[in-house]
Amino acid sequence: MYDKKLQYPVKIKNPNANYAKIIISQLGGPDGEIGAAMRYLNQRYSMPYKEVIGILTDVGTEELAHVEMISAILYQLTKGLSAEEIKKAGMDIYFVDHTAGIYPVAASGVPFDMKYIGVKGDIIADLNEDLAAEQKARVTYDNILRLVDDPDVRDPIKYLREREIVHYQRFGDALRRTQEHLDARNFYAYNPSFD
Amino acid sequence: MYDKKLQYPVKIKNPNANYAKIIISQLGGPDGEIGAAMRYLNQRYSMPYKEVIGILTDVGTEELAHVEMISAILYQLTKGLSAEEIKKAGMDIYFVDHTAGIYPVAASGVPFDMKYIGVKGDIIADLNEDLAAEQKARVTYDNILRLVDDPDVRDPIKYLREREIVHYQRFGDALRRTQEHLDARNFYAYNPSFD
Amino acid sequence: MYDKKLQYPVKIKNPNANYAKIIISQLGGPDGEIGAAMRYLNQRYSMPYKEVIGILTDVGTEELAHVEMISAILYQLTKGLSAEEIKKAGMDIYFVDHTAGIYPVAASGVPFDMKYIGVKGDIIADLNEDLAAEQKARVTYDNILRLVDDPDVRDPIKYLREREIVHYQRFGDALRRTQEHLDARNFYAYNPSFD
Amino acid sequence: MYDKKLQYPVKIKNPNANYAKIIISQLGGPDGEIGAAMRYLNQRYSMPYKEVIGILTDVGTEELAHVEMISAILYQLTKGLSAEEIKKAGMDIYFVDHTAGIYPVAASGVPFDMKYIGVKGDIIADLNEDLAAEQKARVTYDNILRLVDDPDVRDPIKYLREREIVHYQRFGDALRRTQEHLDARNFYAYNPSFD
Amino acid sequence: MYDKKLQYPVKIKNPNANYAKIIISQLGGPDGEIGAAMRYLNQRYSMPYKEVIGILTDVGTEELAHVEMISAILYQLTKGLSAEEIKKAGMDIYFVDHTAGIYPVAASGVPFDMKYIGVKGDIIADLNEDLAAEQKARVTYDNILRLVDDPDVRDPIKYLREREIVHYQRFGDALRRTQEHLDARNFYAYNPSFD
Amino acid sequence: MYDKKLQYPVKIKNPNANYAKIIISQLGGPDGEIGAAMRYLNQRYSMPYKEVIGILTDVGTEELAHVEMISAILYQLTKGLSAEEIKKAGMDIYFVDHTAGIYPVAASGVPFDMKYIGVKGDIIADLNEDLAAEQKARVTYDNILRLVDDPDVRDPIKYLREREIVHYQRFGDALRRTQEHLDARNFYAYNPSFD
Repeated sequence: MYDKKLQYPVKIKNPNANYAKIIISQLGGPDGEIGAAMRYLNQRYSMPYKEVIGILTDVGTEELAHVEMISAILYQLTKGLSAEEIKKAGMDIYFVDHTAGIYPVAASGVPFDMKYIGVKGDIIADLNEDLAAEQKARVTYDNILRLVDDPDVRDPIKYLREREIVHYQRFGDALRRTQEHLDARNFYAYNPSFD
Repeated sequence: MYDKKLQYPVKIKNPNANYAKIIISQLGGPDGEIGAAMRYLNQRYSMPYKEVIGILTDVGTEELAHVEMISAILYQLTKGLSAEEIKKAGMDIYFVDHTAGIYPVAASGVPFDMKYIGVKGDIIADLNEDLAAEQKARVTYDNILRLVDDPDVRDPIKYLREREIVHYQRFGDALRRTQEHLDARNFYAYNPSFD
Repeated sequence: MYDKKLQYPVKIKNPNANYAKIIISQLGGPDGEIGAAMRYLNQRYSMPYKEVIGILTDVGTEELAHVEMISAILYQLTKGLSAEEIKKAGMDIYFVDHTAGIYPVAASGVPFDMKYIGVKGDIIADLNEDLAAEQKARVTYDNILRLVDDPDVRDPIKYLREREIVHYQRFGDALRRTQEHLDARNFYAYNPSFD
Repeated sequence: MYDKKLQYPVKIKNPNANYAKIIISQLGGPDGEIGAAMRYLNQRYSMPYKEVIGILTDVGTEELAHVEMISAILYQLTKGLSAEEIKKAGMDIYFVDHTAGIYPVAASGVPFDMKYIGVKGDIIADLNEDLAAEQKARVTYDNILRLVDDPDVRDPIKYLREREIVHYQRFGDALRRTQEHLDARNFYAYNPSFD
Repeated sequence: MYDKKLQYPVKIKNPNANYAKIIISQLGGPDGEIGAAMRYLNQRYSMPYKEVIGILTDVGTEELAHVEMISAILYQLTKGLSAEEIKKAGMDIYFVDHTAGIYPVAASGVPFDMKYIGVKGDIIADLNEDLAAEQKARVTYDNILRLVDDPDVRDPIKYLREREIVHYQRFGDALRRTQEHLDARNFYAYNPSFD
Repeated sequence: MYDKKLQYPVKIKNPNANYAKIIISQLGGPDGEIGAAMRYLNQRYSMPYKEVIGILTDVGTEELAHVEMISAILYQLTKGLSAEEIKKAGMDIYFVDHTAGIYPVAASGVPFDMKYIGVKGDIIADLNEDLAAEQKARVTYDNILRLVDDPDVRDPIKYLREREIVHYQRFGDALRRTQEHLDARNFYAYNPSFD
C-alpha cells in the first residue's frame, strides 16, 4: 500500500533499523518534512503577494507528499524486524514507546516541536527563513547519504535532496522579486511607518 | 482569498483579537487540528486493517482542511487591527514575535509540540487515543462557544464541533469492529506471543 | 529497603542496564506511571460525580504505588554496575548526568513533560483520555515483555500490565454510568447552555 | 469535599480568577509542589544514608499533601465563575483548553516539565539542589503574598511558606551531618576513586 | 551600574511593565539576542574559512553585548514598580516566579530553548540560517517600535535594529564569498563525495 | 585555532566519538557551562549588593570561557572521524542533524532549555541555586572522569571540576556575608513588608 501513489517510488528490499533511526529525523527532526510543510502552509496568511502565496502553497503541499515518502521509507525499513534485530540496532529505546508505529521524532528521540519553525508575518524575514530551511534539510539529506549504503534507500533520498534545492531556488527567486516590488535600497532597513 | 475553497464558509465581518487569542488553541494547542491531522496520518502505517487505514486517511485529511478553516478564522479576526487594538486585547505578546502572521501555538502561547499526540503502533491503543482526541477537541470547541458571541465566528466553530462528534462515532465503530476481528475476551488483556 | 512495602514484590538478582534503559519509560515516558498518577489525581477536581472522583482517587493513588515499583525495578537493575558495563549498554549518556540516580525520563532520554496528559474539565473527555492512557501504558508493558527475558523482571511487569487492564475496565464502567446519568443520545453532541 | 482531610484548612469565600492565575505556579510551575514531590521522592534511591532517605520520604510525602492544598485553593478560587468573570481576568486563555479543570502549569501557561528538577545520584549535589528548591518555593510564596489581599487565601499560603522554611532547615541539617560522615576537607573536592 | 559600559546608552526615565513584557522577547524569545549569540559562537567550530570564523566571532560577541543592553532596558523598565502597577500590566504572571529578576523568556512566557537555533556543520546552510536569524530579529525590533512610544526606549531599540541589518549584510557578503570559493554552479546542489 | 587563548590548554591527540557523546552534556546539558553562564549573568540585575554582582560577573564570564574549553574538547574529539567511526560510536544520531558542528545538547540529545536555570529575583534563593548548580556540574565532571581514560581529555576536565569547587566556595562566602547584612534569624523566614 505505502509504495504506490508516492511522488517518487520507494521499494526497499532489506529492512534496516540503523537506517530508520537516522532517517526519522527527516520526519520529526529540526529540519524535517513535517516542519517544512507547517512552515510554508502557515506563512501564507500574512504574505502580501499572490505569487508568493502560490509558491508557499505549492511547496508546502509538496512537503506533505515528502512526509508520505519518508514515512514509507521508515515503514519499509522497519517491517518484520525481530526483537533481536531491534535490540541490536539500539532501536529498543524507540520501540518500547511506539512499537513499529511511526511517530515524528528527531534521530535524537526528541518529539517534533513547532519551535523549530518561524512565522514572522514579514515577507522578507519569512522568505529568508525558508531559504535557510531548505539548506538545512539539504544538509540532513547529505548526511543520510554519507551514512547509508543501500541504493534502494539512497535513491529516494537523492530525489528528496534535489527537491530541496529546487525549492531553495524558488524561494530565492521569490525574494528577489519581492525586493523589486519594494524600494530596493530600503526594504529591510527601515519601516517608513515608524522611522 | 482565504474564505473560498474551505470545507465550510468563514465570513467574519468584525475583527476581534480577544477571540483570536483563544481560537488559536485549535490551531497549535494540545487538542488542536494540527495535532489531530498528525495523529491520524502518522498512525496509519502500523494499522493492520485496510478499513481502519481508510478511516484514518479520511479523518486525517479532513483535519488538514480544518487547519485551513481555523487559519481563515484567525486571519479574518486579526485583519487590519491597529496597534492600539492589539495592545488593548493583550495580543501584543503574540504580535511582537509574529506580527499578524499565523503561528501554531496554544492560547497559552506555548508552541505546538508532538508530545501532545500518541502513536503506539497498536490498533486498540491508537483507536482509544483517537476517541479521546475527538472528545478533547469537542470540549475546546464547547469552551470557544462559551466565550464567543459573534455568530459569524460561532457558526463555523459549531460546524467544526459537529465534525469532531462524527469522527468520535467513526472511531468508536472502528474500535468495535476491531474487537470483533480479535478474540473479544482477550483483545487487550494478553498478547499470546509472550504470555 | 526498596523491595518491601511495594504493592507487588520486586526481587531482581541480575543487574542489567539494557533493561533499565527501556523500563525507565514507564517512570518518565509519555505513558508512564508518573503521568498516570498526575492525570487521575488532577482530573478529580472538576468531576461532577462522587463515584468517579472515588475511582480517580483510587487509581491515581495506585499509580503512585506503581511509580515506587518501577523505581525499585530500576534501582535493582542498575545496582553495582561497573563503568564498563554502563558504557557497554550505552547507559553512559544517562549516567553522565544522573550517575545511578533515578530521574524521570522516557527511554529516549526526554524528561517527563506534563504535555503528555490531558485535563479538560469535562467528564466525558477526561474519561476517554483515561481509557486511552491505560491502553497506551498496556502497550508499553507489552513491548517491555517483548524485549526482556529475565523472569525476575517480567513477573512484576506482568503484574503492572494486568493492573492497567483492570483500570481500563473501571474507567469503561465509569464512562457507561456517566452516560446513563446524562441524556444518552445527546451527551457529547451539544451543550444545551449554548446551542 | 476538597477542604477536609487537608494538612491545613482551605476555606475561601470569594472566588477570584486573578489569584488563581498566579497561584497555579505553585502547582505546575518551576518551583511548585509537584516538582518538589518529584524531586525528593526520586532522589531517595541513590542516597547512601537511611537518615537522609527518611527525610526525603517525609518531605516528599508532605509535598504531595501540599499539591492537594494548592489544588483545593485553585478549585475554590475558580468555583462558579461566569464566562464574563473568566474573560475579565484574562483566564480565558486557560479556560479554553481546560475549562475549570486543574492542570499543572506555571502562571505563564507553560506545562510542568521535569527539566525543572535535578537528580544527580550524589548526596552533596542533591541536598544542595533541595536547599535551593526550598528557597525558590519560599520566594514564590512571598510573591503570592505580595499580590494577594484576601486573608482566606493568604492564610494557607503563609502556612505553606513556613513549611518550606522548615524543610530548608531539615535539608541544611542533613547536609551538615552528611559532611561529618565524609572527610570534611575533601567531601566535594575530589573523588579518591579517580584522583 | 547597568547603563554604563553598554555598547549604546540606555537611560529610561519612566518604568513601564507593559513595554518590559514585550521587549523581553529579545532576551529569551525565538529570535532574541541570547539565541543569536549562541548560534554564531557555536557555529564557528565547523566553519572551513578563517574569515567566516572571524565574522561569527565578531557578531556573536556583539550579540552578547546586545544581551546586556536588553537586560539594562528590562531592568530600567521594571525598577521600582509597585505591586499594583505589576498587576495592572498583567506582569504578575511573570513576577510570581521571578520577582523583578531578569529571566530569559519570550513575551509568551516560554523559556528560551536551543531548538530555536540551527547548527548544521555546513557553511552554506549555517550562513543561510544566520541571514534568516538577522531578518527575524529585525522584525521583532520593528514590532517593538510599533508598540512602544517612549523615545528613551525607542532610541536603543532603533540602534539594535540597525545592527541586525549590518549583520545581515555581513553574512550576505560572507555567503557570496563562500560561493566564490566553491564551484558556484554546484555549491548547494551536489556533494561530489557521494554523488 | 581552537586550542590557543583558552583558559586552560586543550590538546587531544586521539579523536573519540564516545567521549564526545558524553562530554557534550557540559555544553548543553542540564548542568552544563552554557546554563551556568546564563544563570549567573542574568541573576546580576536583581542583586542588591555590589560585591555579589561582582562575583556573579566574574564567575559568569569565566563560565563563558569554559564553554569555549568544552567546545574545543568536542572539536578535537570529533575531528577527522570517518562515517564508520561515527556509526560505530552511535554518534550517527547526532551527526545526521549537525554533521561535525557543535550544537548545545545534553548527552541524551535534548537541546539546552532555559528551564534548567532559576532566576528568582531574591538574593538568598539565587545564591542557593548557584551553590546547587556548582555541585551538580561537579558531579557531571566526576562522572566524565569515571568514563574517560585518555589523560589528554581528563586533564582539562579535572581543571574544570576544580573551578566548580572554587565557585562553590565563593558562592558560599557570598551567602554567609549576605546573611550578615540581613537580620540573621529572620532572613529567610518572613518578609516584614507583608507579615
